[in-house]
This record gives sequence, C-alpha cells and structure tokens, in this order.
Amino acid sequence: MTRSNKAQVRITQIRNGEISHLNKRDTVVTEEPLEIRLVAGSDSRQLAVTMRTPGNDFELATGFLFSEGIIESRDEISHISYCVDLDLSEAQKYNVVNVRLRSEKLPDIEHLNRHFFTTSACGVCGKTSIDALETRGLASITSENAIPMSVICDLDDKLRQHQRLFEHTGGLHAVGLFDEQGELLIVREDVGRHNAMDKVIGWALHNNHIPLSNTIALVSGRASFELVQKALSACIPILCAVSAPSSLAIDLARRFNLTLIGFLRGDNFNIYTSPQRIVAQDSTRHFDPNNV
Amino acid sequence: MTRSNKAQVRITQIRNGEISHLNKRDTVVTEEPLEIRLVAGSDSRQLAVTMRTPGNDFELATGFLFSEGIIESRDEISHISYCVDLDLSEAQKYNVVNVRLRSEKLPDIEHLNRHFFTTSACGVCGKTSIDALETRGLASITSENAIPMSVICDLDDKLRQHQRLFEHTGGLHAVGLFDEQGELLIVREDVGRHNAMDKVIGWALHNNHIPLSNTIALVSGRASFELVQKALSACIPILCAVSAPSSLAIDLARRFNLTLIGFLRGDNFNIYTSPQRIVAQDSTRHFDPNNV
Repeated sequence: MTRSNKAQVRITQIRNGEISHLNKRDTVVTEEPLEIRLVAGSDSRQLAVTMRTPGNDFELATGFLFSEGIIESRDEISHISYCVDLDLSEAQKYNVVNVRLRSEKLPDIEHLNRHFFTTSACGVCGKTSIDALETRGLASITSENAIPMSVICDLDDKLRQHQRLFEHTGGLHAVGLFDEQGELLIVREDVGRHNAMDKVIGWALHNNHIPLSNTIALVSGRASFELVQKALSACIPILCAVSAPSSLAIDLARRFNLTLIGFLRGDNFNIYTSPQRIVAQDSTRHFDPNNV
Repeated sequence: MTRSNKAQVRITQIRNGEISHLNKRDTVVTEEPLEIRLVAGSDSRQLAVTMRTPGNDFELATGFLFSEGIIESRDEISHISYCVDLDLSEAQKYNVVNVRLRSEKLPDIEHLNRHFFTTSACGVCGKTSIDALETRGLASITSENAIPMSVICDLDDKLRQHQRLFEHTGGLHAVGLFDEQGELLIVREDVGRHNAMDKVIGWALHNNHIPLSNTIALVSGRASFELVQKALSACIPILCAVSAPSSLAIDLARRFNLTLIGFLRGDNFNIYTSPQRIVAQDSTRHFDPNNV
C-alpha cells in the first residue's frame, strides 16, 4: 500500500560535524505519481500524471480539472473512482483516478495549455517511474571517492554567499555545483528548481564536464524525484538539499547508488542513501571498490 | 525587453500591522515562459514551454534536452539560437530558443515522460500567457469586501498550527483557505504546491463553495504565475504567500484585480496588487463600488 502520506526511512544523522546516529528512524513525506483519466461514454483518455502526496486524491483530480478549465462545474462529473483494472497492482490502483463525465463525449482539451507527464504504461507508481528511468538507460553511480564531512558542512554557506539574485528578490531557487574539495564551480538561480538544475547541467555540457563524477550538487530547497533524476543523468554522485527529500527521491537515489543528503544546515545534515561516500573529518582515504 | 532576471514593482508595505510605505519601490524575480524548439533538417517541433527566470537560456535548453534523455551528448547539437521569426515581438524573440540538431531527423521523443506547458501560439511571453487565460474565459475578481489588516496578520500562525504533516517531515507545501474573519476553513498539504492548491479547490467544488468570493488563501511558499491562475479560476479575491511572488504572478494578479500579498510573516507583509481590499485595523466598512 502506498496511500500513506508519510514513509519511514533510516538515516545517518550528522550533528556538529560528527555522526550522532548511524541508523536513526526518520519520517519523510510520500511522493507518488497520480494519473488522472477522463472517461465519457465509451471513451477514455489519460489526461495528466502529477507527482503528488497521496491523500484527497479525488479533490486533487477535481480541482485540477476545474482550475485548468477542463470542467466548469462539478455537475459535469458523474462519479470519481480509483482504477479497478484487474491487471494493476495494489499500489498502482491507488495511483490512478478515473473521472467519469456525464457527457457522452470527451471535451475538447486542445485548448489545455499544459500537458503532463504521460506514460504508455497502464498504471503508475513510484516503482514503475523508477523502472522507466532504468529502461531509458540511466546508470548507477560508480564513483567511490570519499568526501570528508567538513567539505559537506561548508557548502550551504558558500552557496548562500553566491545567491545574489535571491538577496534582491527572496524569490527563487539555486543549485550550486562544487568540486570534491568543496570549491564552488557554478551557481544557477531560477524560479523553477528543475530549471536551475538544468542550467547547471547545460553549463557542464557546454564546457565538456559531463560526466560530473567528481562533483557535489547542492539545491536550495527540497529534493524531489525530478531533481534526483536530473542529477543522475549527469552522473553527479552526491546531491545535497537544504530542505527535506521526498520518499520517491530517496527510493530513486537508493536504486542508482546516489548519495542523497537532506536538511544540510551548517554542521548538521542527514544522509538518506549511500552514506559510504561521506567519511569522518580529515579522512582523505579513497575507497577502492576492489578492496573493501 | 524581458531578459532581465529581476523587475521593479511598487508595493504597499505593512510593518507591525500598520502601513509603513504606500508606494515603495521593490524588486522581484522575473518569471517568463521559455519555449524550447527542436530543429532537424527541414523539420521542427515545439518540445516544451517552461516558466523560467531569463538568463543562461541556452544552458537551460541544453541541460533540459540532456537531463530528459533527448540527447546523449552536446555533439548532437549543431547550434542554438533565439528565434529570429520576423513576426515575433522583441519580448517573444528572447523567449524562444531553437536547438538545431546535426541529425537530419527529429529524434523519437515519445518516451519523454514529462509534462510542460504547450501553446499553439507562435511565440510566448508573459503577456501572451496572460492573454491566453482571458481567452479561456477567466474573469476579473469583482468582490470589493474589505478585510482588516489584523485578519491578514494572524493567518500564517494559524496555517502553521495546522501543518501537521510538515511537522513530521519538513518536506511539503501547504495551502490554507480562510473566511473573511480569518477562520481557517481547510488546509491541504502536498509535495507540489500546485497540487495543494488543486486539492483546496477540489474540496470547495465538492462542497459547493465555488466561487470562493468570500475567502482568503495562504500558500506556504512562493507565489508563481500558476498559483495565481488557479486562485483566479476559483474566484479567490486575496492570495497571500509566506515567501516572494514572481513578476508574472504580479502581472497576472494586476490584470484580474486579485489582491496579491507576499512575505506574510506575522504583522509584516507586502501588498503587490489591488491593495484596496486591505483596510486599517478594526475597520469594518465595506467598499461600495458605486460610491467610491
């Protein structure tokens, strides 16, 4: 079952620059895809897939249809249900909402000026979203370089010093890219956090720095599925976030051996996945994967 | 020209529950659509439109193509340019990026599992995005009810008290809906702020509360174009954000007479548009639009 709005995980907790708990229980918010299907007469079509926190899914589907101008009143809806296709797994069933309209015909939604995540799969869930990335050719992180904790502890200060646009406006996300010594390579800012990450990756591509195997990225906000996916595409081995990661960001990072760090504030942070890359203060030894 | 990453606006500034400046100059981050077009041989297609902060647009386009798996190396790109169509306005030209591939054929992008704004317009800019909503039938807010400042000053405290999931996980957005006396009607939380807003609107639709003409909405993060659009669709006259609004959120709010409030933290906030709805402490008079 994936309908809970929070999930339990195990973390390595760092406080004051030292490991305070090796296997601490922690709670993260659930992120799972929701597919909204529109049904009218004998027709049906997938309208959107959005990454959401489970709960109030029928409200979400209805609110989406209304706020995007697809329906004008609730009277246009006959009923709403989770998908009952027998070929869907339990998890998938609760990630697909069918909205049946009273009309016998699907509305013209060409004017709909947004489209969404669409998949050819019959059902969606976190696992299928991750599987799809594997199919696309995304590869696991192989870098085993060890980074001293002290390097991680300095990152958020360095990023803040370079968020110039944020200072003026208070209104946007930043992604900073650092080398393994914690030297800042580049900062990009944007109203959209995915755009800030794409700008960093585009910069790296233009300057022939892909794969970014010897770097660390820091995002100013939360770590979502989408941001982990983008970091993986550029082979960034360590992704840090100033705020919280979602459940699906953690699942994706674990599958592809990316080190995911959250709540990075000065000397305090949590490691959610692949903690072997972060080593105690002043250690400079490198892991030899053939000699562990 | 719309390429600046920040914009100047005039605000009504409230400090300690009182008007401290009536027409203060302020700076906000620019939000403008960027259309990414893929060109190969004599074919071309619109790939995505994303709301972004202008700057490093070629990096953004390249990083997007790479992180979404559409190209595998920069060698696949022949060159990148802003659109030079003569029928585009100056503003529009710098919101369309053409990426020409070396290949003579456009790649198969059916596997692309992401969603973006698409429009049938030849060019995009903030103004055309707002015009499109008018064409869709979005109407200006007509409510002229006056809300005492003291009501606004209490909202963020009330929302925080009800963000239970946030307390456990620190990882998500909330939207609270209040009546005109500041009583909390509903809170919805989600990893996606647009989803939290859609859940609130869906709740209202299910309970026959649309139009929400006598309510105030508070979002826990920033106010973007998309959130203002959703608030307008439900006729919410006052939208408050704990953090900053974008330039395009302000432009949209102004066009449709929505009161947009940012940086709402206790007794301090900024009013960006339609300040006439917010009146001094303990005032209970209502505006009569025929008698102003």
